Amino acid sequence: MNEQIQHFLDEIESHIKKIPLDCEPKALYQPVSYCLDKGGKRIRPLMTLLACDMFGGDVKQAIPPALGLELFHNFTLMHDDIMDNAPLRRNHPTVHEKWDANTAILSGDVLFALSCRYVSQVPGHLLRHVLDLFYQTVIEVCEGQQYDMDFESRHKVSANEYLEMIRLKTAVLPATCLQTGAIIAGATSEDQEKIYHFGELIGLAFQLRDDWLDVFGQIEEFGKQSGGDIIANKKTWLYIHALERGSEKQTRLLRDVYSDNYSASDTEKVRLVKNIYDDLGISGIAQNAMKAYYKQAFEYLASIDLPDERKEGLAQIANYLFNRKR
Amino acid sequence: MNEQIQHFLDEIESHIKKIPLDCEPKALYQPVSYCLDKGGKRIRPLMTLLACDMFGGDVKQAIPPALGLELFHNFTLMHDDIMDNAPLRRNHPTVHEKWDANTAILSGDVLFALSCRYVSQVPGHLLRHVLDLFYQTVIEVCEGQQYDMDFESRHKVSANEYLEMIRLKTAVLPATCLQTGAIIAGATSEDQEKIYHFGELIGLAFQLRDDWLDVFGQIEEFGKQSGGDIIANKKTWLYIHALERGSEKQTRLLRDVYSDNYSASDTEKVRLVKNIYDDLGISGIAQNAMKAYYKQAFEYLASIDLPDERKEGLAQIANYLFNRKR
Repeated sequence: MNEQIQHFLDEIESHIKKIPLDCEPKALYQPVSYCLDKGGKRIRPLMTLLACDMFGGDVKQAIPPALGLELFHNFTLMHDDIMDNAPLRRNHPTVHEKWDANTAILSGDVLFALSCRYVSQVPGHLLRHVLDLFYQTVIEVCEGQQYDMDFESRHKVSANEYLEMIRLKTAVLPATCLQTGAIIAGATSEDQEKIYHFGELIGLAFQLRDDWLDVFGQIEEFGKQSGGDIIANKKTWLYIHALERGSEKQTRLLRDVYSDNYSASDTEKVRLVKNIYDDLGISGIAQNAMKAYYKQAFEYLASIDLPDERKEGLAQIANYLFNRKR
Repeated sequence: MNEQIQHFLDEIESHIKKIPLDCEPKALYQPVSYCLDKGGKRIRPLMTLLACDMFGGDVKQAIPPALGLELFHNFTLMHDDIMDNAPLRRNHPTVHEKWDANTAILSGDVLFALSCRYVSQVPGHLLRHVLDLFYQTVIEVCEGQQYDMDFESRHKVSANEYLEMIRLKTAVLPATCLQTGAIIAGATSEDQEKIYHFGELIGLAFQLRDDWLDVFGQIEEFGKQSGGDIIANKKTWLYIHALERGSEKQTRLLRDVYSDNYSASDTEKVRLVKNIYDDLGISGIAQNAMKAYYKQAFEYLASIDLPDERKEGLAQIANYLFNRKR
């Protein structure tokens, strides 16, 4: 990690610590503190600062909206974890587990409001543009989460539908983080569009890698049980592509294993699905798809008319996300 | 109801109908439509238009933020109904009952995002002011809801704590609706403050009347079971004041009746509490408190340097709220 990135991460962390959350009523604000204290990689606000800096903007001006975008991300985690009934987040009990669902709903709501407030702390002549982008993204992220939930109960989900879902749920936010930094730096709308697409493609690749790591990542490195998505019957990129490519026998088995009345052990279930993935070469296909997204993303970055050294920070972050082991 | 009010209400209704909600994913947007279609009195957006008009503003400019404030109000209902486990709202099943809690969480979130978008549709030079007020109010409303939930499990709640809770949960929103209209009309900050306090006091009186009607309203007129708050062990204004004024015997009985292991029938419970209220003259005390808020509210309205006929609409709405039977 280069010095600039480390410096920006330190800045973000120190500003997050300064967000006044020691307020009344405690039952509302403590879960917000808890959620923010548990860390996270702070990739999204980092993207805002890096993009602002790349386009020659004043990074100080980008800090409040960067924080706002990180708060928004944490709000989505708090509410998604209720909906997904997730017990753990960043190795700690989720808010609805540690407190209860009502707490997670309302603390999430106030976190959303706080995120709006921070995002709006930009110079007046940029306020409308930043907000239009932000609200549009919030709406899209909600749509993505809804599609994700819809897909759970749907028999058939196409690869394109899956892609659109993860684009909305996962990819538009990093794209928006980057564009927000670019807006603050006064980048041209052409460059804003390019950096948005760069972020969107990195986001898609990020989610694909997430799906891939769950099955093919090294357990000790990934730090969670291999095949968690399979055990939870998640229709991931891998599963959907296996269904589209498998023989009649393989697709039947994939569907059987994912049906409610399937009774084998979790280990056996993971083994069966992984075997099919291996037979169909799904790991390689997924890796190729990721590489293609990365390639396209870097083409967008390359098309921005700035010297390469200005782009180093963002390129490094993208590579880190691409090569991460967990 | 005067012609102007009817005209504004028609405007609001026709604009609400035009909000594009026939979107995908349906599972996200249908509950939003459902919630908005079930009506409501539209008092809050009406207040925005009336205030804007009173201060001589262009009412057309006030319509988008007025809609946004109504959307925000509906968002709070959707989430509060989950937290309060309410089966009915406006005589129809609540969203979490008709669908499920996850749907009500996520549709609520998107409704909140939509409300932000509408509130932000104001002339550029007013955007920051309108948003600062709005976000502050959103945060306060969340705080109010949290205090309300905290009070359920607290043994002792003082009259002042209760007032502060309803101020946050109920009164700051109408106050903000009025001030938003005033901002758009270019009212002075002094006048903005006056109209804010007018709305806040009307809001307090409104909630007191709600508490009062639940026990002393005529069943056939109020349209719901008398004493619902008592049955639900709600620490209302009436209950808290009865506790503060009752003899040792009366307060012990009030606490016993509200304890979890109290076993008499609902009718008996309501009868017992109502008897104590009657013995202590709580109905009259509550009505006097309401009147005092109204008086103070109208003093704020009177202190605004405009001819009385300009204030007629708002005065009429305030009187309607004061005299409502349900």
